Amino acid sequence: MENMVEMRVIGVARTAYGRREDAPHQPTDAVGTLEIAPAYRKGLADLASFRRVWVLFVFDRNEGFVLRVKPPRGGAKRGVFATRAPHRPSPIGLTNAAVKSVDVERGLVELEGVDFLDETPILDLKPYLPMVDAHPGAGHGWLEPFLEKGIEPRLKKPRR
Amino acid sequence: MENMVEMRVIGVARTAYGRREDAPHQPTDAVGTLEIAPAYRKGLADLASFRRVWVLFVFDRNEGFVLRVKPPRGGAKRGVFATRAPHRPSPIGLTNAAVKSVDVERGLVELEGVDFLDETPILDLKPYLPMVDAHPGAGHGWLEPFLEKGIEPRLKKPRR
Repeated sequence: MENMVEMRVIGVARTAYGRREDAPHQPTDAVGTLEIAPAYRKGLADLASFRRVWVLFVFDRNEGFVLRVKPPRGGAKRGVFATRAPHRPSPIGLTNAAVKSVDVERGLVELEGVDFLDETPILDLKPYLPMVDAHPGAGHGWLEPFLEKGIEPRLKKPRR
Repeated sequence: MENMVEMRVIGVARTAYGRREDAPHQPTDAVGTLEIAPAYRKGLADLASFRRVWVLFVFDRNEGFVLRVKPPRGGAKRGVFATRAPHRPSPIGLTNAAVKSVDVERGLVELEGVDFLDETPILDLKPYLPMVDAHPGAGHGWLEPFLEKGIEPRLKKPRR
């Protein structure tokens, strides 16, 4: 039997990306706005003091999950927990974006560096804390040789 | 009406911390093991190639949420989305830990740097990717003056 937990959607993303095949791969300089629901807006206080924020969101345009995925830079299939692919058992996306502005009263958070689709459900926001989150020398695991060769991620579908 | 989404628990944490008041604050060098359920173990392939991993887990020892929280280093109450406190609308914890070993077949992931409690439900694992996750110069927002003064987080309850 599957063990499930319920999470609250606190808001929705507004971005320029309407379809899965349009979404950019991180890192990106795309801008977007989060609209936080009235019930949660007071929780946005003090967020503007941070330069970067973690956005936890739902990969809601995917059905089901797979345990091995074909990475967008090519090569062998990889275990899904060794990738940032959307087809996860718990389809939670994690994106680090720059905070441009926060309007607590209207529930608006302007971000730079978003890779999620328009109308993406938002679960949580957390401040980016370099003291625990920044590990520049951690390496990129199996992805390292692809990055060294400068291989870019392929788009999900060829553009017309 | 609340807008909820269901997420899958993929496993459970085994750590030395049984009670909320025992859990350390990040950063920590505490070790722990994740036990991933059989249905999801194949997704652990290739994870051992990474030095660090994101662990997304449920803050399951908290009831409900608050929008303004009193931080463990003191000072004014802060908006919950400007803190990493557990009492969130979607009680998802995000911890960055070092990967010590991964046993795909037995579903065991040994970690160093865990701050979560024993039996914590695990939602997801993602590889740490410095190219998108490491921003050493991002600053610490409202927390900055507390860090500069070397103020340590208070324990949740006084020890006896």
